[in-house]
Amino acid sequence: MVEKEHFQIADQEENETLYGVSQDTIRALEEALEENNTELVGRLIEPLHAADVATVIEYLPPTLRHTLIELLRPTFDPEILADLNDIVREEVVEQLGTQDIAEAISKLKSDDALALIEYLDEDKRKEVLKSIPVRERVILEEVLTYPEDSAARLMQREIVCVPSFWTVADTLQYMGKEKNLPEKFYDLFVVDPKHMPIGGVPLSLLLRQSPTTKIRDIMMVDIKRIPTLMDQEEVALLFRKYGLVSAPVVDEVGRIVGMITVDDVVYVIEEEAEKDIMLLARVNESDFFEPLLSTSYSRIRWLMITLLNMIMAATVISQFQETIEKMVALAVLMPINAAMSGNAGMQVVTVTVRAIATRELGGVNMSRAIWKEVLVGLINGVVFGGVMGAIAAFWFADPALGIVLGGALILNMMVAAVGGVIMPILIDKMDMDPAISAGPILTTTTDLLGFATFLGFAKLFLV
Amino acid sequence: MVEKEHFQIADQEENETLYGVSQDTIRALEEALEENNTELVGRLIEPLHAADVATVIEYLPPTLRHTLIELLRPTFDPEILADLNDIVREEVVEQLGTQDIAEAISKLKSDDALALIEYLDEDKRKEVLKSIPVRERVILEEVLTYPEDSAARLMQREIVCVPSFWTVADTLQYMGKEKNLPEKFYDLFVVDPKHMPIGGVPLSLLLRQSPTTKIRDIMMVDIKRIPTLMDQEEVALLFRKYGLVSAPVVDEVGRIVGMITVDDVVYVIEEEAEKDIMLLARVNESDFFEPLLSTSYSRIRWLMITLLNMIMAATVISQFQETIEKMVALAVLMPINAAMSGNAGMQVVTVTVRAIATRELGGVNMSRAIWKEVLVGLINGVVFGGVMGAIAAFWFADPALGIVLGGALILNMMVAAVGGVIMPILIDKMDMDPAISAGPILTTTTDLLGFATFLGFAKLFLV
Repeated sequence: MVEKEHFQIADQEENETLYGVSQDTIRALEEALEENNTELVGRLIEPLHAADVATVIEYLPPTLRHTLIELLRPTFDPEILADLNDIVREEVVEQLGTQDIAEAISKLKSDDALALIEYLDEDKRKEVLKSIPVRERVILEEVLTYPEDSAARLMQREIVCVPSFWTVADTLQYMGKEKNLPEKFYDLFVVDPKHMPIGGVPLSLLLRQSPTTKIRDIMMVDIKRIPTLMDQEEVALLFRKYGLVSAPVVDEVGRIVGMITVDDVVYVIEEEAEKDIMLLARVNESDFFEPLLSTSYSRIRWLMITLLNMIMAATVISQFQETIEKMVALAVLMPINAAMSGNAGMQVVTVTVRAIATRELGGVNMSRAIWKEVLVGLINGVVFGGVMGAIAAFWFADPALGIVLGGALILNMMVAAVGGVIMPILIDKMDMDPAISAGPILTTTTDLLGFATFLGFAKLFLV
Repeated sequence: MVEKEHFQIADQEENETLYGVSQDTIRALEEALEENNTELVGRLIEPLHAADVATVIEYLPPTLRHTLIELLRPTFDPEILADLNDIVREEVVEQLGTQDIAEAISKLKSDDALALIEYLDEDKRKEVLKSIPVRERVILEEVLTYPEDSAARLMQREIVCVPSFWTVADTLQYMGKEKNLPEKFYDLFVVDPKHMPIGGVPLSLLLRQSPTTKIRDIMMVDIKRIPTLMDQEEVALLFRKYGLVSAPVVDEVGRIVGMITVDDVVYVIEEEAEKDIMLLARVNESDFFEPLLSTSYSRIRWLMITLLNMIMAATVISQFQETIEKMVALAVLMPINAAMSGNAGMQVVTVTVRAIATRELGGVNMSRAIWKEVLVGLINGVVFGGVMGAIAAFWFADPALGIVLGGALILNMMVAAVGGVIMPILIDKMDMDPAISAGPILTTTTDLLGFATFLGFAKLFLV
């Protein structure tokens, strides 16, 4: 038995070490930390990539996390901070203190440094900025004046710009000598004398040219210029659509001020999709890493919406107490209508919210999308109204009851369909996020209407 | 008035042309197609990037889409197919026919060609393959033997491999001459005589070396080798974690067979997140582009789950008809319990499903995650049980009724919390997708239990 268990773990390990750190390594590290075996901790951490150390830190329980950070402090790799989840990073930054953080920031790429500093609160941020060398501080302070989630916040300052009259040989020579190049880059940007980007040269293209070729003869001119104020979601769409790996960022007058690379965009794409998933289920994005009480508090805030919704629904039902007393089958059947139209509506809301986010839904196809939902709502309403009406009629041996339930279902599923597609579009037009409010508004509507129509029809036609 | 409207459109246009194609262009194209103005259609399409033509095709209504494809046929750019949404692509492929598709496939990069062919049905695929030149056909047929969603399906065959004993000058010379290089690449891979990757050299690093430097002295040895059978979701996690732009794919014995680049990964990340969003809301991924009847059909299939769920709930309620008849306030309050615990449970399911998908939840922190949810469930249960119990007690001037509702709420919110975290973990352990089934199972549980406990307690203690 022991044999077998050992084998299974080894198997699992083999799979997981593809990511550089296995659950077993973390377990070994937990033990070493608990026993204060500094030497073993060092040996376990040493071979790991910064991203893997970040994973380890995220997996550890808070107390051991604290111990590990103290052990790592003297040789702390700032890259680890760049790879941490926001919530955990805040905790680690707090523990490391101003001096160490300032030092880490001056060692990082400008975009990673910014990511670190932008999550600090006002006071802490000022304190850290004071400890950073003037040159880097000025740059950081300027970028911080741009709105959060803008392209300027995402870009790095380090870029490679060359004039179009250079030859390939000039360019290669320049890159061989210049010390201040970005650590990694994929395109050169060609600029005019005013420092406006007029083209781009992928490195893989540059490498295949003869030395005497002029840059202007090989540069791609259809580059996508990203304004500093463009929203990061738009930046991500642009990269995805055109399969970009890097793109120049330009200021208001069109001068190049930095570049955005695809690794930042991968992060944004994930963040934006994650936000929509979480908002549609009414939880905070960072829920998983949040401490117990703050998770509890944020979930309670979201559930308050459901509670208010249900109190309103109960109020609607209470208007029909006499009706229900006369015909208790109504109480048995009444949740069906609200639940079916609620779920059907959330299907439409989700599809519409995502189609808006991915720009698949626009002015041109809007009326077509709305019509489609109206028709789907009608078809599905008739299907479920028919089926459920028939079941109810047989169950309570009362055809009229079946007709009332079926009719109410058709009506509500139509309302859910129309509301589900129009609500997110309207909310988006008002420049608000449809992922947040479209769901709750729709569910409240379908609930209230669900009970009101079924019980109302019953009162009118049955009792 | 006309003046102003014109101005607004121009404004909107300015914003949208960042993506190369505005809603106005699409509208103009729609008109031109309706009027059969071939010359104008040509002028509107000509300046567009293939990705933008794909967008235009997606936006057009099916009939005009058909007309446009016919007009484009003689000069059809195969890149357009690579950029189309799956559903629309299928339609276009159908219309273009075997001969044109085979031609397009032979012009595309190996990964894009594969993406095109893998969605064809068995017969069509065989037909198309027959029309493709032998060399490309053999490669495609081999890759098609790998499972869908595997790394092998994602990779491109075109790679740049160099031996470690070469100098930078050797390498540059080779790349200058060799005709069969990939169109775009970001890293060279260093291979041993058995063609196993032993290192990688980012182009931006290569460019900064002196010509006599040996490749072995500059290569990065901690490259991430991707087995052909790795799931695309794992590939995406790997790229994101280590900020990769390209990585070598290796066969069972470790020989390099291709590479995966970040643009493919961006697509996978989005696809995987999209799948989870849609599944949690119980709709098909491609819902937006599906034709009316197929959307309707797939939604009905999902809603059948809700229907069965509600019929079971109604059956539970029907067991308590007498109780409800005696105390109709129960009918008023009973939806609250089911709805609150259902929503609270879906919060937990969503957080857990995503934490599993992003590997934030693993063996080490599992028990901690479960305990956290149990405690959050308890706290939130007590909060809402208390609040709602008090409201019910005052509303119906019946403290016992308040206690029954409050108690049932605490119990159900605990069950929802525990079920919400354990269910996805168990489903994942069984190698099934928790995003599909965790939600429905949980909602059914909370619904049935929600009605059963509240009405059960009421029967026992109140009437």
